[in-house]
Amino acid sequence: MGMWIGRGRKARVAYGFDDVALVPGTVTVNPNEADITWELAGRRIELPILAAAMDGVVDPRFAVEMGRLGGIAVLNLEGIQTRYEHPEEVIDRIISGSHDEGTRIIQSIYGEPIKEELVHRRITEIKKGGGSAVVSAIPQRAVRFAKLAEEAGADFFVVQSTVTTARHIATEYEPLDFARLKRELAIPLIVGNCVTYEAALELMQTGVDALLIGVGPGAACTSREVLGLGVPQVTATADTAAARDFHHKQSGRYVPIITDGGMTTGGDICKALAAGADAVLIGSAFARAIEAPGRGYHWGMATPHQNLPRGTRIHVGAVGPLEQSLFGAAFTDDGTMNLVGALRTCMGSVGARTIREFQLTEMIIAPAIKTEGKIFQKVQRAQQLGMGR
Amino acid sequence: MGMWIGRGRKARVAYGFDDVALVPGTVTVNPNEADITWELAGRRIELPILAAAMDGVVDPRFAVEMGRLGGIAVLNLEGIQTRYEHPEEVIDRIISGSHDEGTRIIQSIYGEPIKEELVHRRITEIKKGGGSAVVSAIPQRAVRFAKLAEEAGADFFVVQSTVTTARHIATEYEPLDFARLKRELAIPLIVGNCVTYEAALELMQTGVDALLIGVGPGAACTSREVLGLGVPQVTATADTAAARDFHHKQSGRYVPIITDGGMTTGGDICKALAAGADAVLIGSAFARAIEAPGRGYHWGMATPHQNLPRGTRIHVGAVGPLEQSLFGAAFTDDGTMNLVGALRTCMGSVGARTIREFQLTEMIIAPAIKTEGKIFQKVQRAQQLGMGR
Amino acid sequence: MGMWIGRGRKARVAYGFDDVALVPGTVTVNPNEADITWELAGRRIELPILAAAMDGVVDPRFAVEMGRLGGIAVLNLEGIQTRYEHPEEVIDRIISGSHDEGTRIIQSIYGEPIKEELVHRRITEIKKGGGSAVVSAIPQRAVRFAKLAEEAGADFFVVQSTVTTARHIATEYEPLDFARLKRELAIPLIVGNCVTYEAALELMQTGVDALLIGVGPGAACTSREVLGLGVPQVTATADTAAARDFHHKQSGRYVPIITDGGMTTGGDICKALAAGADAVLIGSAFARAIEAPGRGYHWGMATPHQNLPRGTRIHVGAVGPLEQSLFGAAFTDDGTMNLVGALRTCMGSVGARTIREFQLTEMIIAPAIKTEGKIFQKVQRAQQLGMGR
Amino acid sequence: MGMWIGRGRKARVAYGFDDVALVPGTVTVNPNEADITWELAGRRIELPILAAAMDGVVDPRFAVEMGRLGGIAVLNLEGIQTRYEHPEEVIDRIISGSHDEGTRIIQSIYGEPIKEELVHRRITEIKKGGGSAVVSAIPQRAVRFAKLAEEAGADFFVVQSTVTTARHIATEYEPLDFARLKRELAIPLIVGNCVTYEAALELMQTGVDALLIGVGPGAACTSREVLGLGVPQVTATADTAAARDFHHKQSGRYVPIITDGGMTTGGDICKALAAGADAVLIGSAFARAIEAPGRGYHWGMATPHQNLPRGTRIHVGAVGPLEQSLFGAAFTDDGTMNLVGALRTCMGSVGARTIREFQLTEMIIAPAIKTEGKIFQKVQRAQQLGMGR
Repeated sequence: MGMWIGRGRKARVAYGFDDVALVPGTVTVNPNEADITWELAGRRIELPILAAAMDGVVDPRFAVEMGRLGGIAVLNLEGIQTRYEHPEEVIDRIISGSHDEGTRIIQSIYGEPIKEELVHRRITEIKKGGGSAVVSAIPQRAVRFAKLAEEAGADFFVVQSTVTTARHIATEYEPLDFARLKRELAIPLIVGNCVTYEAALELMQTGVDALLIGVGPGAACTSREVLGLGVPQVTATADTAAARDFHHKQSGRYVPIITDGGMTTGGDICKALAAGADAVLIGSAFARAIEAPGRGYHWGMATPHQNLPRGTRIHVGAVGPLEQSLFGAAFTDDGTMNLVGALRTCMGSVGARTIREFQLTEMIIAPAIKTEGKIFQKVQRAQQLGMGR
Repeated sequence: MGMWIGRGRKARVAYGFDDVALVPGTVTVNPNEADITWELAGRRIELPILAAAMDGVVDPRFAVEMGRLGGIAVLNLEGIQTRYEHPEEVIDRIISGSHDEGTRIIQSIYGEPIKEELVHRRITEIKKGGGSAVVSAIPQRAVRFAKLAEEAGADFFVVQSTVTTARHIATEYEPLDFARLKRELAIPLIVGNCVTYEAALELMQTGVDALLIGVGPGAACTSREVLGLGVPQVTATADTAAARDFHHKQSGRYVPIITDGGMTTGGDICKALAAGADAVLIGSAFARAIEAPGRGYHWGMATPHQNLPRGTRIHVGAVGPLEQSLFGAAFTDDGTMNLVGALRTCMGSVGARTIREFQLTEMIIAPAIKTEGKIFQKVQRAQQLGMGR
Repeated sequence: MGMWIGRGRKARVAYGFDDVALVPGTVTVNPNEADITWELAGRRIELPILAAAMDGVVDPRFAVEMGRLGGIAVLNLEGIQTRYEHPEEVIDRIISGSHDEGTRIIQSIYGEPIKEELVHRRITEIKKGGGSAVVSAIPQRAVRFAKLAEEAGADFFVVQSTVTTARHIATEYEPLDFARLKRELAIPLIVGNCVTYEAALELMQTGVDALLIGVGPGAACTSREVLGLGVPQVTATADTAAARDFHHKQSGRYVPIITDGGMTTGGDICKALAAGADAVLIGSAFARAIEAPGRGYHWGMATPHQNLPRGTRIHVGAVGPLEQSLFGAAFTDDGTMNLVGALRTCMGSVGARTIREFQLTEMIIAPAIKTEGKIFQKVQRAQQLGMGR
Repeated sequence: MGMWIGRGRKARVAYGFDDVALVPGTVTVNPNEADITWELAGRRIELPILAAAMDGVVDPRFAVEMGRLGGIAVLNLEGIQTRYEHPEEVIDRIISGSHDEGTRIIQSIYGEPIKEELVHRRITEIKKGGGSAVVSAIPQRAVRFAKLAEEAGADFFVVQSTVTTARHIATEYEPLDFARLKRELAIPLIVGNCVTYEAALELMQTGVDALLIGVGPGAACTSREVLGLGVPQVTATADTAAARDFHHKQSGRYVPIITDGGMTTGGDICKALAAGADAVLIGSAFARAIEAPGRGYHWGMATPHQNLPRGTRIHVGAVGPLEQSLFGAAFTDDGTMNLVGALRTCMGSVGARTIREFQLTEMIIAPAIKTEGKIFQKVQRAQQLGMGR
């Protein structure tokens, strides 16, 4: 397994969404009869498509609507919702500035300190609306914010950074101890991101409840571009799914994996689940919902980073209600609407009655770029969605 | 056979038209002496290039002209020909609306119910004109429409959906039983689409007379984009041709396979046949014939789909009579005209005297995208032809 | 050797110029000391770069200049030089028409019958000017024209069609017998085009003096696009070089192979020779010489074809004298000027003192498209040069 | 190891920066605690990123600033600094001419003879400013200039040509003897460029102190385009790193390798070091520093070449001080700023505490071009930076 890339040096080939396609089954199933639910920390979740912790995508109101539709949205505790009492005003400034000012405005806005009382308030807003409160923080603030979130009644806590391992080495500060955080936390803990079998297995062994999968998934991602770092998502998902299955056999505990990043179409989502994911985390596609706080704009990364610049503001347009993004009807044929309908149809076509069956779908290697116009479509869509940033 | 795409996960590489090329023979043959006929349900067909069941391509008048030239055109029983008494008026509305209105106009037009008396009338029109009446329906309406078509004097009946298998699972409705439909139908039955050895073999074993091959053939196809589903056509054709040959040995019955989708040039058609097809089904190239009802426009998919949007209207231009598309003279060198001439010349160059000999042509893997300008040409042509939609 | 492209179906991967690169040697040589001559039918030729039989490239005047510089230009006996007494006037019409009229004007011009007395006159013009008279015809006229050419004092005779084999099957006419043509001809005979080991070997065994290698070399070539036919040139050259070497061992006769088509830069030429060619045949790059009769325009194919349209007229611009194309100084860095200088420098860098040593150069697979901007450059240049048509 | 590219002919696949990505570690490290220093001829160097000997990038003032920041800049002794007493005036002419005049102006400027007294003066200027004086010459002038440089107090001497071997064959002149040059020179000697295991090993065995790695690294490089010559940098670096490690085991002497060319982003730099380099040499990225003498313009190659044209003048823009290019903060997310920050973050993410540990990073093959928009970004950036010329 692996190719020679130089004397004494081998490398595996890794595959992304554009490299593979799903093979129709010998049996097909009525799409309406496909079961798309999954289980997270003992709780059955209706939709396997989650909204990512990005300020242009998720605010309490969006989280409530997502909950009403059976899904989960992650609220970023490191963003404007906890830095500003009135985030709409801040968003006004972000979207009304000229394109050139955009990045600098965003940088100055994120210089404002986080206010802990707002952590409590945002969670309360979601809970009052009837949604699941799922909130995320970076490792440096995880211990403090997990406690606040738990007290405020959050349902799940997410710790997220670009690359997360169970073993971080530092002398300048004390690394986060996931096992201890998990022990001391009453609500389920989701941790990410990771991409390899080994890193995923070690994180699962700390006792966390789910993992986010994805580092530099696409070639245009900041991590890949700026750091050279990343693994395409089909391989990352298949590898960490193997870790999940091994850990399940070993410990009896099933730790779901949530593929995060690099998906823009229903086809990408289908491929992630078929590669082994239990659910997916989507950013840009939801930024186009009219309920998204960015009002058709989208910016930044979920995870702030010391050495990496914040992403640029991108106009994606508010094309329709979230319900339509999820359940249609689609009035475009680019695969960005009716994501649930696409998932059901695909499961029917490959003969999968459940997500767990779907994870066994046969794939072929069939690079997308080799054929007609796909590259241009991808480019245009990626530019529109600010994908992979 | 297969590459590792992740831990414990293998995938085969699949190949499309742009991935391969045909190798000249050690013997060559005078192109005029190549026999391009094939046999379908005991009937000899002059041309191995069929016109697809798309409303912008085939109406009774087009089917008659195709018949005159020795070929077969499939009329869509699910489209405007059976929904409207005067389809030209409907087409007027489709092609005169602005580009932005296009999709919505098309969607509203296809909301009109199908009128069974029109099924009968359209078939009669083709038969009166002297053409072969070949008509298609989706599985849900196949039993009813097959009976109507047979009564009206149709020559062949086609059942077509995105993915068709001999074993469909549903509790909400009764799945179509192909063996029974075949038994109860006096005229030959063509079924599709499928792409794998197993699915093709099971369908052949139900007794059907021919198969349509092709699911998500190109990366820009709706099935591939929206569902992640599809197999490039060279591999799909070679795999199902192997099923045909196995079934032939086993049962003594030769069930021809018709590659459907993803071909825009004479070169693509040659590759499909060389990969093992007995005939091909073409849509977009024929939309450019002046006999095509779309008058230079092209839209929709052959198969309507519950969860997928209808395709957008595309302007391809009416460039010349159908006869010229098939037999030349070509006045462009992009491979979209004189398709029969190209086929004969290619068969001569590889030394094939019959389609069955041509199916054994040596291929090489020689990705088209790697060289000069092809990608741009492809993109432009695909955009013009609305290919793969 | 080969990949599975479907059940029971294998294909080799073939490589073109953009797929490979040459590896620097462990020894290097002073470029001025590299010997670039080669031998054709017992005659030492100074330059391994020949000019192709295209009407926009070679007329008697060009052939004389090429001879003066040590090279060979092939004059097309099927083109305007033998159809018109005053070809300049015809070229005026070709280059002064609008772009849209171009193809039709060219088609009508080539409808004029060939005048046998002009065959004699053109050859005489070249000989008087001191050049080597190398003239080409298609197989159908080869017997007649070979005799005329020989009588007129031609140095070499070329028979060229898209795909040539020693065994052509036809009942409508008598296939050309190369062994007989060679026996009856006093001047050396060059034949093409072919691309496979077997076809090349059989042609060599008929006794011909050199072979032209190349069918559908690039993905944008008419043969590849329209017929699906072709083999990338690195593989075609290496395969037929192996046939040459086998035939040399077997018979003691060394039949040089001349790679024809698909080269636009000095780098491509170097790769063709390093892959095993003894010389190369170039069209478009020489169309830019101010001595070229096309005055900056370029059209058509070397070989007319019953089922294929003639190529479109393309403006390439007359950028400098032929001497500069061959020997520099280059004032662009796109690799289209100073072709001999590039060849010498490359031979020096890989440590080759002769073409025969150069044929052993180590190659690596390093697809050009994977990196920066090459695809765009290629596209632009291909568009400018009308390459591969 | 290798693929068949034709009968009896094999070739290895070679990999470049766009073909691979780095895999996150199972352990991660605080980026601030990563040690990025390296050792050159017994001297510890703070930064593993050197500035290339290009006239638009390095003059004495730039070298002084680079030294202040812990780095090394190579001054070209073959360029305008040694041909003109007042180089700023010459640069004025280069950057004020029209685009079309650019190349000719540059060619005439480099026609001026080199003045030996200026070699001394430029070195003195760097030393006075407190920088390391590292100067380069071509092999033809190496013996003479090495002596001059040593006398003037240079710290390191560089001999650089497109392809350098320990065994050069020439009868017209006496080839440079590296072993002798090294013996007679008191200051350390850096030699390049080479790309293969064998050539690197032989050069190390002559006693030189470091090697520059890179010939035709990218497909758009002049060497690759014009000569067909080149090896992608990941493979070149891994192969020569293996030679370095072998030579180290054999002789006890560690000869660092410096990857030169083809890098535009922090990601590329990380990949070069992860592939085995001890340091990298960068041109175009530093041309954007406001300290660069080209004032936002960039031209030519480091190495003049008899048969190759000089590169074209390219406008890259002066975007910020050198300190910001190296240490940030980045205000773009394209990977061209904060190169040291990116390196530290990447080392932290893969768990490398030193460059030597970083050289062992796991890589995957994950072609960049296959995904979203990268190709366009690359093209644009390459065009802006005039990269690879």
